[in-house]
Amino acid sequence: MKIALAQINSFVGDIENNSNVIIKRAKEASIRGAELFITPELSICGYPPEDLVLREDFLDACSKALKKIAKTMPSIKMIVGHPLKKGSKIYNAASLLFNGKIQGTYFKQTLPNYGVFDENRYFEPGEKEFIFTHKGLKIGLLICEDAWSVSPGKLLKKKSVDGIIVINASPYEIEKSDTRIKVIAKLAQETKSTVIYLNAIGGQDELIFDGGSFVVNKDGKLLHQSSFFKEETTVISIFSKTITKYNHYKTSYSKEAHLYEALNLALKDYVVKNNFKNLFIGLSGGIDSALVLALAFDTFDKKNITAVMMPSEFTAKISITESRRMIKNTGVNYKEISIQSIYKLFRKTLSNEFKNKPFDTTEENLQARIRGVLLMALSNKFNGLVISTSNKSETAVGYSTLYGDMVGGFALLKDVPKTWVYRLAHYRNSISTIIPNEIIKRLPTAELRPNQLDQNSLPKYEILDKIIELYIEKDLDISSIVKKGFSSKNVNQVVKLINNNEFKRAQSPIGPKITHRAFGKDRRYPITFKH
Amino acid sequence: MKIALAQINSFVGDIENNSNVIIKRAKEASIRGAELFITPELSICGYPPEDLVLREDFLDACSKALKKIAKTMPSIKMIVGHPLKKGSKIYNAASLLFNGKIQGTYFKQTLPNYGVFDENRYFEPGEKEFIFTHKGLKIGLLICEDAWSVSPGKLLKKKSVDGIIVINASPYEIEKSDTRIKVIAKLAQETKSTVIYLNAIGGQDELIFDGGSFVVNKDGKLLHQSSFFKEETTVISIFSKTITKYNHYKTSYSKEAHLYEALNLALKDYVVKNNFKNLFIGLSGGIDSALVLALAFDTFDKKNITAVMMPSEFTAKISITESRRMIKNTGVNYKEISIQSIYKLFRKTLSNEFKNKPFDTTEENLQARIRGVLLMALSNKFNGLVISTSNKSETAVGYSTLYGDMVGGFALLKDVPKTWVYRLAHYRNSISTIIPNEIIKRLPTAELRPNQLDQNSLPKYEILDKIIELYIEKDLDISSIVKKGFSSKNVNQVVKLINNNEFKRAQSPIGPKITHRAFGKDRRYPITFKH
Repeated sequence: MKIALAQINSFVGDIENNSNVIIKRAKEASIRGAELFITPELSICGYPPEDLVLREDFLDACSKALKKIAKTMPSIKMIVGHPLKKGSKIYNAASLLFNGKIQGTYFKQTLPNYGVFDENRYFEPGEKEFIFTHKGLKIGLLICEDAWSVSPGKLLKKKSVDGIIVINASPYEIEKSDTRIKVIAKLAQETKSTVIYLNAIGGQDELIFDGGSFVVNKDGKLLHQSSFFKEETTVISIFSKTITKYNHYKTSYSKEAHLYEALNLALKDYVVKNNFKNLFIGLSGGIDSALVLALAFDTFDKKNITAVMMPSEFTAKISITESRRMIKNTGVNYKEISIQSIYKLFRKTLSNEFKNKPFDTTEENLQARIRGVLLMALSNKFNGLVISTSNKSETAVGYSTLYGDMVGGFALLKDVPKTWVYRLAHYRNSISTIIPNEIIKRLPTAELRPNQLDQNSLPKYEILDKIIELYIEKDLDISSIVKKGFSSKNVNQVVKLINNNEFKRAQSPIGPKITHRAFGKDRRYPITFKH
Repeated sequence: MKIALAQINSFVGDIENNSNVIIKRAKEASIRGAELFITPELSICGYPPEDLVLREDFLDACSKALKKIAKTMPSIKMIVGHPLKKGSKIYNAASLLFNGKIQGTYFKQTLPNYGVFDENRYFEPGEKEFIFTHKGLKIGLLICEDAWSVSPGKLLKKKSVDGIIVINASPYEIEKSDTRIKVIAKLAQETKSTVIYLNAIGGQDELIFDGGSFVVNKDGKLLHQSSFFKEETTVISIFSKTITKYNHYKTSYSKEAHLYEALNLALKDYVVKNNFKNLFIGLSGGIDSALVLALAFDTFDKKNITAVMMPSEFTAKISITESRRMIKNTGVNYKEISIQSIYKLFRKTLSNEFKNKPFDTTEENLQARIRGVLLMALSNKFNGLVISTSNKSETAVGYSTLYGDMVGGFALLKDVPKTWVYRLAHYRNSISTIIPNEIIKRLPTAELRPNQLDQNSLPKYEILDKIIELYIEKDLDISSIVKKGFSSKNVNQVVKLINNNEFKRAQSPIGPKITHRAFGKDRRYPITFKH
C-alpha cells in the first residue's frame, strides 16, 4: 500500500490556497503511485484557526473547499483535516475523500486544552472511532492528541485495525520529536498496528510545526522519518516488505541545529505570511542582536535586511567595531545613527521636571526608547518589520525596555534562554564564522549607563536560566528551588522579577515557542496579582 | 433565616488578605444576626486566578486558608469559594464551613470556556449536586455558570430544595445585570425555590465584577438587590414574611451611569492593586483623553493625577485652550511640553534616510511616539502609571500609534465605542461641567498633519461603531453587514482595517471589558492569517 505523507504548510485562513496546495500535492502523489494521500490536522484552514472558527462564513468556506477537493481528486483516497459544524456543534474533523465524495468523517475525541491549546473553546469531542478499509486492510484514523490519550487507541484496538493514521499539527519544542516517537511506538505496540504519524510544517504566530513525520511498525520500530522543517510529500510503501528502502530516517542532528532551523522557519513564515519584505534589526554589539541578524541572514536575501546601530555616550567602541565586522561578514544594509543629540534634547526638555532627581532607569529607558522610535520610523517609512532581540532570560526578569528594545512585530528569541543563545551562536559559527568572536566572548551589558554589566545585578546566566526553568517550566515554588542548591537570595530575586514583569510581557511582541513553557499563550498569568 | 451576602473584592493571589477579609466580614455579619454567610466564587484566591491555579504552592495555600477560616469562625455557617486539588484533578469548589470544620464541598459542574473564560484549562467538572439543611430548609449550592445551564438546576429540582445559593464572579457587560435576573428568575421558577445570587466586586485586569447581588422568590419575583460596584455585606431575611423591608432594590439608574461607575471601579482596582499612586494622562484636546481625565479625577485625589499636554506644529489652539480649561475645572497637575524641537531633531536625524520620501504616517507616528517617550519618562521617574486613552473604535481600526498614544499600563476606554465616549461625557457633565463643551463639540482629529479629521478617512462614528459591533460582537460577514443597510465600501474598509490591526492590538495595554465581546482574552484572533 503506497501512502503519501504530505507535510503541508497551511496558511491560517487561506482556505482557497490551502485547498489548491492539497490538490496539487495529491496530483503529484498520485502520479508517483500513491493510493492514499494524507494531510495534517485542520490542513484546509491551518492550525490553530483560533476564533476564526467561531465564524459561520469561515466554517462554510471550509466545507465548500472540502467538497471541491473531493470532486477534483476522485481517483485517490485522501484524508483531509477540516473544521465541521453539525447543528450547533463544531468539530475538529478529518474526512476520507474518494470517488468525488466525502466517504466518512472522523471527529477528534481528545481535545487538548492546556499550554498553547484551547480546543475546548471551539470544539466538541467526538465519541466514536473511524475505520476504513483499503485492499482488505483496516485503517483507523486519529487526530493529534487522540494518540496521547488512552481511550481512542483502545477503541481501535477492539476493532483489530492493521494500521493507524495520526494526523497532527504538533508544535515544536526542543527534544519533543523523540517524545513523539516514544508515544507513538507505544500506541503501535498496544494496538498491534503500524502507525503513520503525519505532522504539519510551518510557523504560525507563537507556534512552529516542525514536520518530521514518521512511521513505526507494530513492534514500535521506526521505519521511516520525513524531513524536519521542510514541506515535502513522502510516498512510502507500508504493509510490504519493501518498506526499508524508503527509510530515510536521519540519525539525529544536534539539538542546536534543530533549534536553529526551527527559528529560521518561524521567522520566515511570520515575515512571508504577513507580507513583509524588509527587515530591520537594531544591532547593539551584543550576542542577542548578532544571533538574530545571523538567523535573518540565513533566511532572507541580505538586500532586504537592514541592521541599525544606534550608539550613545555609553556605547563601547567594541560594540561599534564588532557590529561593523558583522556587517562585513554578512553584507546586509547597515545604518549607524547616533542617538546622542536626541537623548540630550530629551533630557533638556525634561530637565525642569526632573530637577534634582538622580539618573536612574528613566534615563536608561529613554535611550532604549529613542532607539525604538528610530527603528520604527525606518520600518514605517520602508514598509518593513522590526525583529526584536530580547531573549527568554531577559523577558523573564524584565531586562528590556517596553517600547524600547522591545519594539517590533516578532521577538525571535523570546523563548530562547541566554545560555541557548550562546549555544546557537557557536553552532552557527561552526558552519562559517559570521558572528564576531569578540561579540560572543564579551560580558553581557545593556550599555545604558557607565560600566553596566548584567552579572552585576543578576545571577550569572547559567544560574538564572536554571532558576527560570524551575519556576516557569516546572512550576516549583521558591523553597523547592532553593532545595535544589540555589541561593535563597538568587531565587527570591529572580522570582520577584519574573512576577513583577507580567505587565511588560503582556505588551511584548509574540515570539516562537521552543521550550516546554513559553511566555505567551502557553503561560497565562494575571498582570494584577499579589506576589 | 438571616443570610449575609458578602460582595467581596478579592485580590487575585492574595490568599492571606482575602481570608482575613472573609473572616472580618463574617464576624460583622454574625453580630448583625446572620446565620449563614456566603462569599463569591473563588473568593479565597480571587477570580480568575489563571495559571496560578496550576501551582501546587498556590493550591496548598488556598486549602490551608480555608481550614483557618473554618477554625476561626465556628459559630456561623459559611459558604466560601476556593480551588481544590483532589488527586491529580483541580476543581472550582465551594465549601460549607461550620463548627470549625469543612462540612462538605461542592464542585462546579458547568465550566465556562468561551469568551473571557478558560475554566476547562484548569478545572474538572463536578458531577453531583450539593445540598445542606438549615432549620429544616433544604438549600442547594451552585457556582456561576451552573445557573445558566440546565442540568445542575434539574439535579436540585429532583431533590425539592427550598432555596438555591448561586455564588458568582460574573463579569460586567452593559445591560448584563438585567439578563442575570431573567436567567435566575427562570431557575427559581423551574426549581420552585428562592434563589440567592451573590456576585463578586472589583476590577481584575480585563474584567469588572459589578456586584448587584440579588434574591428572587420561587415565582421569579425580585425581592432584593444589593449595590452595584460597592463592597458591602447585606444581611437579609429570606423564607420569612419580613423580606420586603430589606428590599433596597434601586429602580434602574441609567446605562451611562452604570458604565461610568464600572470604569471607575476598573481604574481604581488596576491602580491600587498594582500599587501605583501617580497617574499620568496624555491630554490632546480631544474627547477621549478628556473623558479619561474625568474618570481619573472622579476616582483619585487630584494631587496624584498629572495631565500632560504635548503640542506640536499641528496642534490647534483650541486643543491647548480647552485642555487648560479642563485643568482649571479639575485642578489636577498639568504639564505642557512641546514636542516640536524633538520632532524636528528626529526628522533631521532621519533626513538622510528619508531623502525624497514624502511625509506619511511615519511622521505622524513619530509625533505620537515622541509623546509616548515623554509620558513614559515622566511615569518612570515618578513611579507612576500611564493611562492610555484609545477607545474601542480606534482600537478596532488601528487609529492609534503603537508605542505612541498606545503607551500605558491600562487602556481605560479600550472597549468603549466612540459613540459611548460621547454618551459618557454628556453623562458626566450632567452632574457637573468638567469636560469643556468645546471638546465635546469639535470634530475628532488626531492632529498629526494639517487639517486632519477622522471623518475624512473613516465612516462617521455612528456608522463605524455599528459595523464594528456587527463584525466583532455578532461575527457577521461582510455581505450580511451590507444587507443591513451599510455601504459595501464602508464595510469592506472597516473589516479590512480590523483584520490588518491584530498586531497592534496584540501589543496594546489591557483594558476593561464592557461589551459582549472585547478585544483581549475575549476575542482571540491569530495575528498571522489570510484576510
